[in-house]
Amino acid sequence: MNEVSETLERIFKARSIAVVGASTDPTKPGHEILKNMIHIGYKGSVFPINPNADSILNFKCYPRLLDIPEPIDLVVFVLPPNLTLKIVEEELVERKRKFGDTAGVVMVGGGFRETGTREGEENENRLKQLLRSAGIRLIGPNCQGIIDTTSRVNTTFDIGDYKKGAVSVITQSGALGCSFLMWAKFNELIGLDRFVSFGNMADVDVAEVLEHLAGVPSTKVIWVYLEGYADGKRFMEVARKASSRKLVVVLKPGKTQLGATAAFSHTGAIAGEDQIWDAVFKQTGLIRAYSLQEFYDTTRAFEKLPVINGNRIAVLTVCGGLGTLCIEEIAVSHHLKMACFSEETKQRLRALLAPTASVGRPEGYVDTTGAVTEMTHYDAMRVALEDEQVDGVIFLTTPPAFLPPRGWAEQLAKAYNSQPPIGKKPVVAVVGFGDSARESKEVLEHEGIPTFDFPESAFRVMNNLAKYHLYRERFAN
Amino acid sequence: MNEVSETLERIFKARSIAVVGASTDPTKPGHEILKNMIHIGYKGSVFPINPNADSILNFKCYPRLLDIPEPIDLVVFVLPPNLTLKIVEEELVERKRKFGDTAGVVMVGGGFRETGTREGEENENRLKQLLRSAGIRLIGPNCQGIIDTTSRVNTTFDIGDYKKGAVSVITQSGALGCSFLMWAKFNELIGLDRFVSFGNMADVDVAEVLEHLAGVPSTKVIWVYLEGYADGKRFMEVARKASSRKLVVVLKPGKTQLGATAAFSHTGAIAGEDQIWDAVFKQTGLIRAYSLQEFYDTTRAFEKLPVINGNRIAVLTVCGGLGTLCIEEIAVSHHLKMACFSEETKQRLRALLAPTASVGRPEGYVDTTGAVTEMTHYDAMRVALEDEQVDGVIFLTTPPAFLPPRGWAEQLAKAYNSQPPIGKKPVVAVVGFGDSARESKEVLEHEGIPTFDFPESAFRVMNNLAKYHLYRERFAN
Repeated sequence: MNEVSETLERIFKARSIAVVGASTDPTKPGHEILKNMIHIGYKGSVFPINPNADSILNFKCYPRLLDIPEPIDLVVFVLPPNLTLKIVEEELVERKRKFGDTAGVVMVGGGFRETGTREGEENENRLKQLLRSAGIRLIGPNCQGIIDTTSRVNTTFDIGDYKKGAVSVITQSGALGCSFLMWAKFNELIGLDRFVSFGNMADVDVAEVLEHLAGVPSTKVIWVYLEGYADGKRFMEVARKASSRKLVVVLKPGKTQLGATAAFSHTGAIAGEDQIWDAVFKQTGLIRAYSLQEFYDTTRAFEKLPVINGNRIAVLTVCGGLGTLCIEEIAVSHHLKMACFSEETKQRLRALLAPTASVGRPEGYVDTTGAVTEMTHYDAMRVALEDEQVDGVIFLTTPPAFLPPRGWAEQLAKAYNSQPPIGKKPVVAVVGFGDSARESKEVLEHEGIPTFDFPESAFRVMNNLAKYHLYRERFAN
Repeated sequence: MNEVSETLERIFKARSIAVVGASTDPTKPGHEILKNMIHIGYKGSVFPINPNADSILNFKCYPRLLDIPEPIDLVVFVLPPNLTLKIVEEELVERKRKFGDTAGVVMVGGGFRETGTREGEENENRLKQLLRSAGIRLIGPNCQGIIDTTSRVNTTFDIGDYKKGAVSVITQSGALGCSFLMWAKFNELIGLDRFVSFGNMADVDVAEVLEHLAGVPSTKVIWVYLEGYADGKRFMEVARKASSRKLVVVLKPGKTQLGATAAFSHTGAIAGEDQIWDAVFKQTGLIRAYSLQEFYDTTRAFEKLPVINGNRIAVLTVCGGLGTLCIEEIAVSHHLKMACFSEETKQRLRALLAPTASVGRPEGYVDTTGAVTEMTHYDAMRVALEDEQVDGVIFLTTPPAFLPPRGWAEQLAKAYNSQPPIGKKPVVAVVGFGDSARESKEVLEHEGIPTFDFPESAFRVMNNLAKYHLYRERFAN
């Protein structure tokens, strides 16, 4: 672990946090942040700084940073810029000089460069300079800050308790990052490992955090909302390293580089700019999402799924219409192709399915028709997964009304989870619609099979998994 | 109304229905169909044909079609092919000859051409021939049949009661058609006018029903899942007529024309085939959806929205990240462009928004930032809609936690609905995520503003609305 990583780790694992601008008013962020720390179950020490209160939410208040008698790892600021600068200069820098304790600062408050004013710019520069000379790293200003679901450090005021999981979030838009977390939480789709929102990104930046998270064992998937990064060479080095150890999914708006106004000038320069980023992602093995939904879906599916070891997909459908739409996506894809079943597989499938079922027309395709039982779901999935020429399976259904909603889903999941852990093949499911479908989806998600409403969504996720396989193969050679 | 339309109308409005193959067994389709007729509140006469039962679900049974003492408008068959043919020949044809009553038949049962056997093919030809010579129209075989939410005729066994509305469904895949209805019902998104599933489409076909529905006043939007149609010229005539009176949204899998197996041969012929269909849709003013989700979203939004009278879109966002993603979709679109606000609009917006808000950078864009009140939602939407240079508005938000979820949504809807009915401009909303967002969405949907999870979905719907405007302009000249 390099020095930057060590510092970042001290921030994520802060054993004590001071909150400058802590408020007794429950409608203020300076109060919400304290509430979230309790809510998420932070076990370290919390020191609200507020000269006019004795305690807030049972935490003893201190009038000044310098008064706290214990070492402070992290200081959170929720104040306007002038007060922030004053306290950084008069108290924080002084404290660091005396006790050498504070590793980092999360600056939630705004009013700096993002205002577009000269004063804001100057204030931000002054802030950076003060902290740099004191050897304190800065996250923000104008940001949501960080969450670590293990240490339970949480400086955000939007996100409270969150299920522990393997997805980490790096975002240059606090609102979008939180929006993703709320989407996933509402639908019980992901677990969170860590979260970093940079705001103005005056100091600690995307590349540093990406590099750090690449070395964090509890993180499997990294969700990156990237608006821009000046040092392309540095970004590429870090991205390459990260993708060799993690699944990194990135959304990069194509034209924000030149500012939103530029979105209207269709010049070669813009296209080129975006094409360069596209090439960067491909060369470094980052999975680029091309829409917000793809970004969300890919991330949540990657958390659940094993990696794929090829690109040969079997499509197993109960509904011919959905199957056709899925096959056509694969047919025009550059990364996936339909699997070729062995003769044995075809025979086994024909033996267990109804005579109306269609097997291997086209290759790798099975339409069971609605004439299925719960056991058919188990058997057909098992046979498809056992074929050595199959790398992954997309399953599609509009569940027949006569089947109990949990039963068929449990059987499908049983076939999926009866695979040996080494070389386990990914399965994704499209399940449409109604109350019974929701119940089936809950079973599948719980058993590790990501579910989708539409064939194109399932296809995109499997396609992205195959892209990642391709990148890994290429880098291994 | 031409003769075909008159016959179809007699079928949709059937005052009496016989069900051949009616079953006392609640697990059988021949029972479900009767149950759905009760469920949906069909007020006409129902005559189950079953020689072994006195009554089913309180309907008196008759042993044979010929025994029913009243005129029969529609006969539904839920039997295997051999029995079907026998009863058609010995009873139905005879009955029609004697009483001249039956207008049409819905043949739910399968076992015909779709089996791929010579026997199935021959049976279907025999069926067609018998019915044609008797002057009876055939829907099916191997289909879900029809629903009319006004007459409450319902021959399906999947779909029971359904909210009355302005969407009609024409589908060559019964499962996909039902899947759409279940999706929309589950999310309370659309109301249904009529539904037709053709199955093998041996007689009554897509063009006939499309032509008929084009003249049905209660239908505003027609959802067409089209697998193929042999007579291109006839289809174009009908499609052109339909699009001049209705919003017709169509999904056509690109390669099924040549069968699913063909999806893998990337020959010019396939691409050409699909390009021809693409041209057909454009020339006739049908809105083609390019994914299942776009198909569903466009249809449900079209039911709610007024048509658009131009392509100049204002983007009003509470969240910069979402706004940026939406603007970029518009920037690369061929149909939409950002509106240019008048100077007066910009001044009014600046006066009512926080100093941190961004107005008109780029043109037509407003980022209110999170510093909004309930009233800001009303005021900003109202000002945007009042600008003569704006044809429609996309609103995006991750609702600030401090705002009551119903309040801001009600204000936004109030601004939308305070427009004069003539020339009312469409508004769509992106609202992400969590419990409070769900509550806000319910308000917006109820007030006529379609809501989406992702900016790309809202963009696609507005883009399709603008395409429809373009078609209408072109045809008017």
